[in-house]
Amino acid sequence: MSKNAASDKQNADNGVARIYLDHAAMAPTDERVLRAMLPYYDAAYANPSSLHESGRRAAAAVARSRARVAAILGARPEEIIFTGSGTESDNLAILGAARSRPISFGARGKHLMISAIEHKAVLEPAHALLTEGFSVETISVDEDGLVDIDDIMSRITPETTLISVMYANNEIGTIEPIRELAAALRERRGAGHFPLLHTDACQAAGFLPLNVDELGVDLMTLNGSKIYGPRGVGILYARSGTPLSSVILGGEQEHGLRAGTENLPAIVGFAEALEIAEREREEESARLSALRDYFIAEILKALPNAKLNGHKEKRLPNNASITVPLIEGESMLLMLDTFGIEASTGSACSSSDLTPSHVLLAIGQDPDSAHGSLRFSFGRKTTKAELDRVLHVLPGIVNRLEHISALTTTATTKINI
Amino acid sequence: MSKNAASDKQNADNGVARIYLDHAAMAPTDERVLRAMLPYYDAAYANPSSLHESGRRAAAAVARSRARVAAILGARPEEIIFTGSGTESDNLAILGAARSRPISFGARGKHLMISAIEHKAVLEPAHALLTEGFSVETISVDEDGLVDIDDIMSRITPETTLISVMYANNEIGTIEPIRELAAALRERRGAGHFPLLHTDACQAAGFLPLNVDELGVDLMTLNGSKIYGPRGVGILYARSGTPLSSVILGGEQEHGLRAGTENLPAIVGFAEALEIAEREREEESARLSALRDYFIAEILKALPNAKLNGHKEKRLPNNASITVPLIEGESMLLMLDTFGIEASTGSACSSSDLTPSHVLLAIGQDPDSAHGSLRFSFGRKTTKAELDRVLHVLPGIVNRLEHISALTTTATTKINI
Repeated sequence: MSKNAASDKQNADNGVARIYLDHAAMAPTDERVLRAMLPYYDAAYANPSSLHESGRRAAAAVARSRARVAAILGARPEEIIFTGSGTESDNLAILGAARSRPISFGARGKHLMISAIEHKAVLEPAHALLTEGFSVETISVDEDGLVDIDDIMSRITPETTLISVMYANNEIGTIEPIRELAAALRERRGAGHFPLLHTDACQAAGFLPLNVDELGVDLMTLNGSKIYGPRGVGILYARSGTPLSSVILGGEQEHGLRAGTENLPAIVGFAEALEIAEREREEESARLSALRDYFIAEILKALPNAKLNGHKEKRLPNNASITVPLIEGESMLLMLDTFGIEASTGSACSSSDLTPSHVLLAIGQDPDSAHGSLRFSFGRKTTKAELDRVLHVLPGIVNRLEHISALTTTATTKINI
Repeated sequence: MSKNAASDKQNADNGVARIYLDHAAMAPTDERVLRAMLPYYDAAYANPSSLHESGRRAAAAVARSRARVAAILGARPEEIIFTGSGTESDNLAILGAARSRPISFGARGKHLMISAIEHKAVLEPAHALLTEGFSVETISVDEDGLVDIDDIMSRITPETTLISVMYANNEIGTIEPIRELAAALRERRGAGHFPLLHTDACQAAGFLPLNVDELGVDLMTLNGSKIYGPRGVGILYARSGTPLSSVILGGEQEHGLRAGTENLPAIVGFAEALEIAEREREEESARLSALRDYFIAEILKALPNAKLNGHKEKRLPNNASITVPLIEGESMLLMLDTFGIEASTGSACSSSDLTPSHVLLAIGQDPDSAHGSLRFSFGRKTTKAELDRVLHVLPGIVNRLEHISALTTTATTKINI
């Protein structure tokens, strides 16, 4: 191990005392998953496209993993496409389906409907399609972050080729009515024309049911790092018959839909992680939901100004997102950090820029309030004691920041006069 | 560990007796690399975009790895883009540079020049650009697989925006004159217009110098699995000022050029693997070159009909590619496999289809001969004793197949009469 790796490990080990509440950004790889992966790095490491025995064994390991994933989703193995990340899966769903669909529909079908609170991995490819003649309609959400199925259905046109609504939001935790939306869309199928439905289920996996037939989706994105799996691996489920074109070109891997040598340890690890997540899903969801409800209730009691973001009941078991008016989320985050508590403002994916979260704006928060959000996302090792520690520390932090904020506001007011 | 993983591991361990000569398809992950990666899976695992201490440590580990890679290439850290594979890096180089370049040149610059023996990860994106108004000119190679610099220079037009020539070919091992090509292109730069030069160095890493200034390339692809590193990670070197647009959208990672949470263990492992490969490069190249020359000489002695594919001297130290006329490469491969010897026909990436290798066709082999190729690619653990075993076994295999082939030919001839 290099000195830096050793130091990072030591710091992390000392960090047992640290309270990590940022599992929506990244979960550790489960040791059972890591154990399943290791042989495929340096023992059974061949290229699955090689024809010799080691290659055939590698190909069999990929096939076995694909079958395991398919079984959990109630899908067929050939409907599972392994990719390099959740982001890549989202890109493949949006770009791949949109670009293939118009062909199936002749010259038409260039209308996309994308929910306002999608991850940027969905939003950005959708917007990139504008330059290819597509129109992109934003599906708005209510103040809890929920889409309105009647609204969606009323805005579908014969040109609508793809609808993307995430299964559960990464920032505010709201769970969308995917099953109901899919049912409404299926009813429409009798009319001969129907849009495809994609859902980004990266945050939902491990908490919500993933059976694609019960859900009724055509395309579904999952990734490894949110389910205690390896990083750098995701899947796209694509229902048989769904037209799709590749994003990464240059090889026949993944049914010709994703070029590049299969990442064997990551694929094996993904299957292992998804199985574990599914096996422990109900018990863990119940445990975390109870912790979540306790935590949210206590926080709102301790911080009378604070507001819960996202739907009160229809929310991920591991998500508690709040907004404290007039207080910078980033300031709370950094002060919590000095107490060894690790949380997040909106999503980690956009934490390096200063624009307010598009999700919080979409649920009607004004840009100033949207800066005051704080997200706690729990994990398998999160305990009530850890949350009690946050509840013990947070009010003091908010109090102190409110004091500073009051001074700043007064100062600013004075300057303005 | 699952039963299957354990069984794969056991089979691989028993396989110490097996002779793996397919390193160009996949090399095992070095245990030093794996040791460097492990802490970033389950100890120091945070998302590098997170603002808390664990996130900042993760970001620092990415930055450190980027600097280590940059130092080996003689590049600046901001010129290194981590991707999900060599294939993705090639895609980003070709699609990203081509799509950005015309803008820099106004409405012009839609002419690409791609060598005939590029990996499909370069060829396919180049051909995909045909639908976007680009023209793609194939750079032919001689019977050794070498490009002709004068020929390339004479065919450059003011519209030529990108030239892609691989550093060393994965199938026949020929090393291309990248440094000389870059020098010729640089001379042209005085004229105001110049094409960018991309080189796919996936097979060259660990054997050939990688300093980007000495080479003179603008874009260079490397991947992890060919340098005893992790799978599912590659880099694209992109010289400062090279216009580039993303292929994977939806996040500001990698200077905004490759969206998706950084694959921390793979990135750390890539840097470790590249450092080891560079440190051991000269010694290992010398060792393997000697083995290669011995092996090739003995094979050509034992099989008088066999022909060496690729350049005799300008070839990768670990590559021995031969063609045996009238014999199916796949038949030789499968019979070698029964003796525990693992080799390849052309490239693993296209081993599942039956079209003859585009590389062998490009060096002038007729389609029938091109089916008779066999590639041995050596690695760090390859010994003379292993090669002697191949030399002991192969002539008998060829003899047996020649006998079968002769019978078949006679039978066919009879039927034709």
